[in-house]
Amino acid sequence: MTQEAHEIPQEVESIFERGELVAAIAQDHQTSQVLMIAWMNRDALLLTLQSRKVTYWSRSRGELWEKGLTSGHTQHLKSISYDCDGDALLLKVEQVGSACHTGEGSCFFREIELPR
Amino acid sequence: MTQEAHEIPQEVESIFERGELVAAIAQDHQTSQVLMIAWMNRDALLLTLQSRKVTYWSRSRGELWEKGLTSGHTQHLKSISYDCDGDALLLKVEQVGSACHTGEGSCFFREIELPR
Repeated sequence: MTQEAHEIPQEVESIFERGELVAAIAQDHQTSQVLMIAWMNRDALLLTLQSRKVTYWSRSRGELWEKGLTSGHTQHLKSISYDCDGDALLLKVEQVGSACHTGEGSCFFREIELPR
Repeated sequence: MTQEAHEIPQEVESIFERGELVAAIAQDHQTSQVLMIAWMNRDALLLTLQSRKVTYWSRSRGELWEKGLTSGHTQHLKSISYDCDGDALLLKVEQVGSACHTGEGSCFFREIELPR
């Protein structure tokens, strides 16, 4: 077994083995604000674990996307957990600047009004 | 325009119009703990808005799934926001009992150890 194989839990590996992506939720490690959600393939997760700079897989561009590489709005990984069925990750991060490309602190900046 | 049409923002509607689902992240409205992630179609979102009891779309069973209907572990909706590209929702909820079917408070109960 390589070092790499140890780093990714089998539940998550099995998602990648099926050719699927895992959802990755980024949460501010201090305020607990949910910042964004994006996707990771195996390479994105390994790069994130090794560099502690969060890297996603861009489904629209079909390429790895190191968060903040052009904007400077890097996400420094503090801890990472995975969910009961292994297809989602929760990343606690230190966010440099704004998480959202709009300049908002979180991508979830618009509320849906509850009826009545 | 019907009342229904007003409740769902156009960015989110356009995801449903493409036949896609939106990711729905449930977060405890008091502790800010991220509890779980699941999926919603248009009916699930409308039912959630109208009843304020969170209903997801089960991709594996292909049916609507009111959280807690059998377990009693209901999620009461407190507020809901959507992200910049309209394909993800953040639900702040009051969780009755445990969010995870394993009995854990959150589905994200296992950490991945960071290398070195």
